[in-house]
Amino acid sequence: MIQQLAIVGLGLIGGSLARSLRAAGFVGKISAYDPDPVQGETALKLGVIDRVATSAVDAVSNADLVVLSVPVLHTEEAMRSLVPGLKPGTIVTDVGSTKQSVLRDVANACGGEVPAWFVAGHPIAGTEKSGVANSQPALFKGHRVILTPHTKQDLAAKAQVLAMWEACGARVVEMEPARHDAIFAATSHLPHLLAFSFVDMLDRLDHKHEIFPNAGGGFRDFTRIASSSPRMWHDIIKANKECVSELLGKQIEDLQQLQTLIAADRWDEVSHIFERARAAREHYLTQIE
Amino acid sequence: MIQQLAIVGLGLIGGSLARSLRAAGFVGKISAYDPDPVQGETALKLGVIDRVATSAVDAVSNADLVVLSVPVLHTEEAMRSLVPGLKPGTIVTDVGSTKQSVLRDVANACGGEVPAWFVAGHPIAGTEKSGVANSQPALFKGHRVILTPHTKQDLAAKAQVLAMWEACGARVVEMEPARHDAIFAATSHLPHLLAFSFVDMLDRLDHKHEIFPNAGGGFRDFTRIASSSPRMWHDIIKANKECVSELLGKQIEDLQQLQTLIAADRWDEVSHIFERARAAREHYLTQIE
Repeated sequence: MIQQLAIVGLGLIGGSLARSLRAAGFVGKISAYDPDPVQGETALKLGVIDRVATSAVDAVSNADLVVLSVPVLHTEEAMRSLVPGLKPGTIVTDVGSTKQSVLRDVANACGGEVPAWFVAGHPIAGTEKSGVANSQPALFKGHRVILTPHTKQDLAAKAQVLAMWEACGARVVEMEPARHDAIFAATSHLPHLLAFSFVDMLDRLDHKHEIFPNAGGGFRDFTRIASSSPRMWHDIIKANKECVSELLGKQIEDLQQLQTLIAADRWDEVSHIFERARAAREHYLTQIE
Repeated sequence: MIQQLAIVGLGLIGGSLARSLRAAGFVGKISAYDPDPVQGETALKLGVIDRVATSAVDAVSNADLVVLSVPVLHTEEAMRSLVPGLKPGTIVTDVGSTKQSVLRDVANACGGEVPAWFVAGHPIAGTEKSGVANSQPALFKGHRVILTPHTKQDLAAKAQVLAMWEACGARVVEMEPARHDAIFAATSHLPHLLAFSFVDMLDRLDHKHEIFPNAGGGFRDFTRIASSSPRMWHDIIKANKECVSELLGKQIEDLQQLQTLIAADRWDEVSHIFERARAAREHYLTQIE
């Protein structure tokens, strides 16, 4: 049983996890550390955590379970800073959107090999809003959490992390790290890149001041993810560079093909693309969370 | 005062307009024609209209105001079919997403010139769901309606159409047709094209069966407009081909530039694009309906 939980990197996900566990009846202590003091103060004020730690080492001292929720490229640095404070038997898990990079960086921070007590995880939940102030106690309810076990994985540690997410109402599935990164490049990383690029393109048009006030609901939803944290998404795209680049190349090719069809007035083929897309989305819609 | 309203082309927009006017206290008769008999039957069953007409001419006979709500490339054909049924003084307006093509097609159907009694309009409201079954009585509440007056515009006709939309709770603004088409290519037409192309690209990946079930809320919102009517959007993109092509070209260039930055590990510049996009969206968000 977990008596003490530590959160290193306190934002939307860490804060929502704390609130979800509280809502599920978790009565142990929750300590947290974030380099931004506003996050800790806000979390205390909202009653999300019990204690604001002064460092990662301070946060994890006496913790049974540590949740690392920092931008993915800070994984190695954060692990190096917290490892000296871990007591024997403590489990560490993470919530990063890329899993190959996280496992590589954890190995680097721990003498070249991922420790048995590290469990790589990724909750498929979030909003475009960042920070603990936007955390929600039901953020993970009904959503997937992907665990990507490694070769030295301790099964009891994995079971503890699984139990933590199930207590939050999530459904936990396992996946190979490489498979995870290829899938989420398609469903999440590329769409973020496209949305950022689209909004930035509009913002550089001469008549931009007329454009945005005439945007409707379709625009608002299409661009919602362009309000996500630039720092977090810089890290994710960089950490999953190969998968994202490959898909971005395919997307550019498809748009060039569409441009050719439009220029040549091959409208039946344009229509066919629209029909295939709509049919695919409608077919899979029930499976999208 | 409008005593009889006719809707030619009965779908989400026509049905929602009828319901909105009813909710606002319109007590006149509403007749409607759609080539798909299911639309008329559904509308009667839902109490949205009073009479299903057997043709466009039949629908508009005795109408004071006719609302044309067909896919934009059917404008000329629909106008030709309904004009013989119009009594003197009847106002005709439309709801098409492109305004230069509509005005050109109306002119073609009416002997080369847009008649004074035609008012070109575009309500900035809708959902990805088509058909009168999805119509809503509050669809236009708080949303913009753009009117694009032409050189021969009768001002009383324009005032009637404005009053109709204001009764539905919409805010009416005027705009040059060419300006309208440039703006909505950016806020609406290009995003639809990008969303269709993105979903279609994923649907042709080998591991597509693993991709869609792992999609989350970001994906769902980003791709929502890819569930829109392929026929309607084929018409809009074709009718606004020049504006959409120009922006598609810019978008492809920007994505190629992003691909170059990623390949060259110029991450600060990638980050800068994300930051600009987020700042622009947050800045304009209050203006997006």
